[in-house]
Amino acid sequence: MKETLEYIPAPELRQEMTLRLGRVAEAMTAAGMDALLIATNANLYYASGILFRGYVYLTREGRAVYFVIRPAGVHTAADVVEIRKPEMIPAELGRLGITPAATIGLELDVQSYSDIERLRRVFPTATIANASPLLRGCRQVKTPYEIDRMKEDGQHHVAVYRKIQRLYKRDMTDVEFQIAIEHELRSEGNLGFLRVAGQLMEINLGSVIAGDNADAPGPYDFTMGGAGVSPALPCGACGEIMRVGDTVMVDVNGCFNGYQTDMTRVWSIGEPSPLALKAHECSRRILRTLEKEAKPGVEVAELYRLAEAIVAEEGLEAYFMGHRQHASFIGHGIGIELNETPAVTARCRELLKENMTLALEPKFVIPGVGAVGVENTYVVRPDGLENITPFAEEMENLL
Amino acid sequence: MKETLEYIPAPELRQEMTLRLGRVAEAMTAAGMDALLIATNANLYYASGILFRGYVYLTREGRAVYFVIRPAGVHTAADVVEIRKPEMIPAELGRLGITPAATIGLELDVQSYSDIERLRRVFPTATIANASPLLRGCRQVKTPYEIDRMKEDGQHHVAVYRKIQRLYKRDMTDVEFQIAIEHELRSEGNLGFLRVAGQLMEINLGSVIAGDNADAPGPYDFTMGGAGVSPALPCGACGEIMRVGDTVMVDVNGCFNGYQTDMTRVWSIGEPSPLALKAHECSRRILRTLEKEAKPGVEVAELYRLAEAIVAEEGLEAYFMGHRQHASFIGHGIGIELNETPAVTARCRELLKENMTLALEPKFVIPGVGAVGVENTYVVRPDGLENITPFAEEMENLL
Repeated sequence: MKETLEYIPAPELRQEMTLRLGRVAEAMTAAGMDALLIATNANLYYASGILFRGYVYLTREGRAVYFVIRPAGVHTAADVVEIRKPEMIPAELGRLGITPAATIGLELDVQSYSDIERLRRVFPTATIANASPLLRGCRQVKTPYEIDRMKEDGQHHVAVYRKIQRLYKRDMTDVEFQIAIEHELRSEGNLGFLRVAGQLMEINLGSVIAGDNADAPGPYDFTMGGAGVSPALPCGACGEIMRVGDTVMVDVNGCFNGYQTDMTRVWSIGEPSPLALKAHECSRRILRTLEKEAKPGVEVAELYRLAEAIVAEEGLEAYFMGHRQHASFIGHGIGIELNETPAVTARCRELLKENMTLALEPKFVIPGVGAVGVENTYVVRPDGLENITPFAEEMENLL
Repeated sequence: MKETLEYIPAPELRQEMTLRLGRVAEAMTAAGMDALLIATNANLYYASGILFRGYVYLTREGRAVYFVIRPAGVHTAADVVEIRKPEMIPAELGRLGITPAATIGLELDVQSYSDIERLRRVFPTATIANASPLLRGCRQVKTPYEIDRMKEDGQHHVAVYRKIQRLYKRDMTDVEFQIAIEHELRSEGNLGFLRVAGQLMEINLGSVIAGDNADAPGPYDFTMGGAGVSPALPCGACGEIMRVGDTVMVDVNGCFNGYQTDMTRVWSIGEPSPLALKAHECSRRILRTLEKEAKPGVEVAELYRLAEAIVAEEGLEAYFMGHRQHASFIGHGIGIELNETPAVTARCRELLKENMTLALEPKFVIPGVGAVGVENTYVVRPDGLENITPFAEEMENLL
């Protein structure tokens, strides 16, 4: 039988976790936190390499204790402590000789108010600090191991995109096209699950948007909308037959190993309109520029400004990042979660760092035609961006 | 073009929303809340019939105002107010002649600590109460419209299960079998997205567990575990070839219209072991008993006790609800979310009410063989349970 959890972390990940948690501990010292209690899935996975129900307690000296509620009875490592509930943590810390923290960081941006109030009572004398921004910041810069996982993910992702042209059949609906693509994703090893940050973000395995549906504004903070097929998930493909003249934007997810890549390509049904083609090539021109200019030390907002300047030069402002409704970002951090920080907006004052990973997606919506533009996932390298979703970017004709 | 949101609620749902929100307003009066601000997806959908980014403000008199952040510019109804951020709500309420609430209910069990702190500053003079239990309670008892949606969902769900026997091919892995089933689900109209309560619960479109993998304990609060294929999602199918002698439990999701049904059937590869067969039939015997005994006014825990008594009579305690790790519940409420309340545990003192919807899933794990048992989704009627996922329950041989 396969075991889900024999060790936390797995023996082959011990060194990796030491590296990651060392970085987190450094940031804790800078932020004045004595300890940090991690309780939510993306951060648990970051801090342990596996999902379990429980907590990671980290001291500013970099010592980690893994408190496991579920599964029970399968852990042998010395720093793994089985508990039934968080109220048992302080006594166990005492037993391990760890002195009570004066300031403890909790994930205030992710955990529910009720959960935080419960933890506050678990540590009644501690000052509670918000550890969410700190953890988001640490996760922005990937370790070599994480970059390898993302590259591996990108290879699977590209392997699926290679098959998309062949999946199209005349008079297909957008949903039928998406189902065919999803089947290839799953067959390639996609987990069939998309880890997205924020309870207000919901999506299935991605977005396939054809024709006019690109201009249907959605409630979610994705770059593109789409009406969806149900008011319960108003997003993406709407179930209509894709018509000659439509562009079809495929932005389906890579999530093959717990890390993710994000990737968009566009196909046309018949010859694309000159405006759609111009906008699509403008997106590629923006990416080529950003690939050169995005280096460690550059302000994130500068990427947005560079993109905007190119769009203005080509007179395509009315269509950039939407037409009836505009997205305010052209990219985002990515890793364990699809939508990590930083968001690439006009106002983001953060500076790029080496080994940050970014998805960049300058897109356009052409009314009556559809969405166009390219998205790749990149690693920030000393001399620019490394594309880890390399695949032909030209708009191919599906007919 | 399809529009995502022209009206909130849609004209055909106005009466339905009046009914739902009238019930919520009644509960608010009983709980001493003057107003309630809904901000999370499942409750937004419940209160409006559509997903949007924003808030529903409800007074104890039953007046609802829909504050919409996204999408922008598409709402024409009189009680829909566009805002950019929640800080704009109090002034808009004043403009509408709604007096400030002394006590306001917020979703403390679902919204993040940071979001609640922000809303607290929006309503600085109000006492904040936890509206999560109130809303969970109201959503337990479905309206006739909601039951119709769930029955419709159940019909699609059953249509997919009808095809499962034909999808099996010799030497398939459990993942390949699941992918084939998912493809049928999506082709039948499944949204490809599963709304689950709680950020610690993660799953793709469901669980296909074959053989020994049923005994791999998982981190999540699902009834069954399974190792999964990745430590990033340690749950369900593990990628191994299904072998003669295995049982294969299929617990994949119905979510075709924003409401959900939950349904499990089991197949065997070759002849099942006598113990597996006995346990499977015991599950069916439990369901037949509960279908008769579960009536309005009966304590939820009584369902658990009835099941336990039957299991003890048949001497199957060691396998009930798991073998190495046991789940503490045999069913759960269901509707907009897969895992609603009440949880059917030994300790749940709540009483059944007419038109509650429950998924009941007495299951067993037989070591070396696999999981067995049946799950149906039911409506509580005056004289017992109505099964809305009717489909043959016998363990069929896939060979």
